[in-house]
Amino acid sequence: MSFIGTGTPDPNPGWLSDDELAGIRQRLPLLYVEAVPVRVDGLGQVTEVGVLLRVGSAGTITRTIVSGRVLYGETLRDALFRHLEKDLGPMAFPQLPASPNPFSVAEYFPSPTLSQYVDERQHAVALAYVVPVTGTCDPRQDALEITWMTPAEAASDAVSAEMEGGRGALLRTAIASVGKLP
Amino acid sequence: MSFIGTGTPDPNPGWLSDDELAGIRQRLPLLYVEAVPVRVDGLGQVTEVGVLLRVGSAGTITRTIVSGRVLYGETLRDALFRHLEKDLGPMAFPQLPASPNPFSVAEYFPSPTLSQYVDERQHAVALAYVVPVTGTCDPRQDALEITWMTPAEAASDAVSAEMEGGRGALLRTAIASVGKLP
Amino acid sequence: MSFIGTGTPDPNPGWLSDDELAGIRQRLPLLYVEAVPVRVDGLGQVTEVGVLLRVGSAGTITRTIVSGRVLYGETLRDALFRHLEKDLGPMAFPQLPASPNPFSVAEYFPSPTLSQYVDERQHAVALAYVVPVTGTCDPRQDALEITWMTPAEAASDAVSAEMEGGRGALLRTAIASVGKLP
Amino acid sequence: MSFIGTGTPDPNPGWLSDDELAGIRQRLPLLYVEAVPVRVDGLGQVTEVGVLLRVGSAGTITRTIVSGRVLYGETLRDALFRHLEKDLGPMAFPQLPASPNPFSVAEYFPSPTLSQYVDERQHAVALAYVVPVTGTCDPRQDALEITWMTPAEAASDAVSAEMEGGRGALLRTAIASVGKLP
Repeated sequence: MSFIGTGTPDPNPGWLSDDELAGIRQRLPLLYVEAVPVRVDGLGQVTEVGVLLRVGSAGTITRTIVSGRVLYGETLRDALFRHLEKDLGPMAFPQLPASPNPFSVAEYFPSPTLSQYVDERQHAVALAYVVPVTGTCDPRQDALEITWMTPAEAASDAVSAEMEGGRGALLRTAIASVGKLP
Repeated sequence: MSFIGTGTPDPNPGWLSDDELAGIRQRLPLLYVEAVPVRVDGLGQVTEVGVLLRVGSAGTITRTIVSGRVLYGETLRDALFRHLEKDLGPMAFPQLPASPNPFSVAEYFPSPTLSQYVDERQHAVALAYVVPVTGTCDPRQDALEITWMTPAEAASDAVSAEMEGGRGALLRTAIASVGKLP
Repeated sequence: MSFIGTGTPDPNPGWLSDDELAGIRQRLPLLYVEAVPVRVDGLGQVTEVGVLLRVGSAGTITRTIVSGRVLYGETLRDALFRHLEKDLGPMAFPQLPASPNPFSVAEYFPSPTLSQYVDERQHAVALAYVVPVTGTCDPRQDALEITWMTPAEAASDAVSAEMEGGRGALLRTAIASVGKLP
Repeated sequence: MSFIGTGTPDPNPGWLSDDELAGIRQRLPLLYVEAVPVRVDGLGQVTEVGVLLRVGSAGTITRTIVSGRVLYGETLRDALFRHLEKDLGPMAFPQLPASPNPFSVAEYFPSPTLSQYVDERQHAVALAYVVPVTGTCDPRQDALEITWMTPAEAASDAVSAEMEGGRGALLRTAIASVGKLP
């Protein structure tokens, strides 16, 4: 079984066999998109933050956000939409932001010396977005559940400690970018 | 007739009489919000930009964007929503951005020496936002019409030349912020 | 003694007497700029965050950031530079950012119901910036001292609890905006 | 002769032979950083924009900005610094921004149907930054010259028409991000 998202199996590994991708992972930074799903009120204000519960490759249960690779020939928006649909189901109705600018750029390295974000498999650079969803989220694949929390809960040390790859800091940065960090 | 928006009469001048406001205008910078209404496609990409046609105080017809003052005790989101509703009607269904950060800050001074933005009446500082609208726009008050254009048209020299107070540059900056400047 | 910054006496209250300013404070939102001074390394990465120790009006010692009002006819950059010099001294050599866009906008209200930021005296809206300083900081006026901390220390609950007006959240948001939130 | 930057030969192709890189280019998006060098005044305001003159692979002379690939194991800041030094020389003294967030993300595809940015060789995604330089620029390698222009000149149609890969739009977006678009 191959994992090319952050613990997310991808049925279409971009015209690369598992062996080829494994080889490239040691030689090139891979481009990712990540998304923090949120609920907003009538004035656009974030009221809830969605955090995914996921069974990791070792059977451990961790929290994460929507995350996945950008394929060859795919725009960032297409990749973002594809991974949101994969992780939240087809009825989430995400509202992708009008601006292509991420709220932050997370650099994942195999070892934690260069960055606070770690991905043992590879060097990955993720453009991260906050995405309001207006529909019903129904996590698919290996995501067990989406938990909706207040921004303050999502930014808490308890939640951060359960997130994989150091993504607690990225989640807090997302909450800061919408002015909701406590 | 009093104008407290940029050419926009405001029925509720924030608990200030016209005389009082006129006096303050010579002594304090006033805080404004401005909004560029846009239409987006299913991937959040801006497809059209809305520009208002307005009859100015001298009877001249100029183009502008949504603009108005922030009142005492009013949040930026409330002010933004109020002015969007005033200029686009109650059925525009604006989607205010999740982030409070403007795409740009425009500084208006009575004379054009300090900034490219000019407001003869006052020193005003405007926080400017791009706001997708999903409903029907029905301009009210003194706005005659909203014209929907492609981003390239809205960024053209012809449109810029018709905009009041130097807002052509602000409109282009809005279009740049969503990655659609030609 | 009058305070028109956040606990900062201002020798030039913008051609307004104290009485006039007191009156306006109940009727108009006032425009502020705030700055978080930082030290950066050769790659622009934030290594230290400067937090001011200040004696508040009640004699209490609190932590704060650089903060002050924008005067009539003054650009945001001029206001930012003036308040940085006032609070950090003339040898701080601040490098104002090339972009006019703040990392966040903080809305201060007299009561804490509308926002997490509180200013008992007034409704103030602050454009907040991260500003690298390259020289020597020598706090003047009522700022007793500037303390340099790692980003993680500055984002800690202990520091947040000591900051006035809810600025702990703003300081954390600043740290998030430079990718240094733990 | 191999070009792995946008027209920039790179002596160290990231532990990949030319053949290997050529193969990967058809199968994965490559991660780039791009930089618009600027001069700023004492208040951080952009006064001049640097545009590179470069001899393209076909011998044609085009204008471009600093651009190059991010290597495996390299941080974005290290890549940015390396390419700035390569294109502007060792005495440019670039001041990398404190925030890791790009002013825009440019998506280059071999054909112009998906984006306004084109790179015939590959699918590349570039994080683009505005970088003040304080020293002396002495372009090396295949960059013939750096031309300093006012923001208005750099944003002109004449300059845009000479830029490779559609980067005129990116240059204008950079100028918009610092509030200097005319």
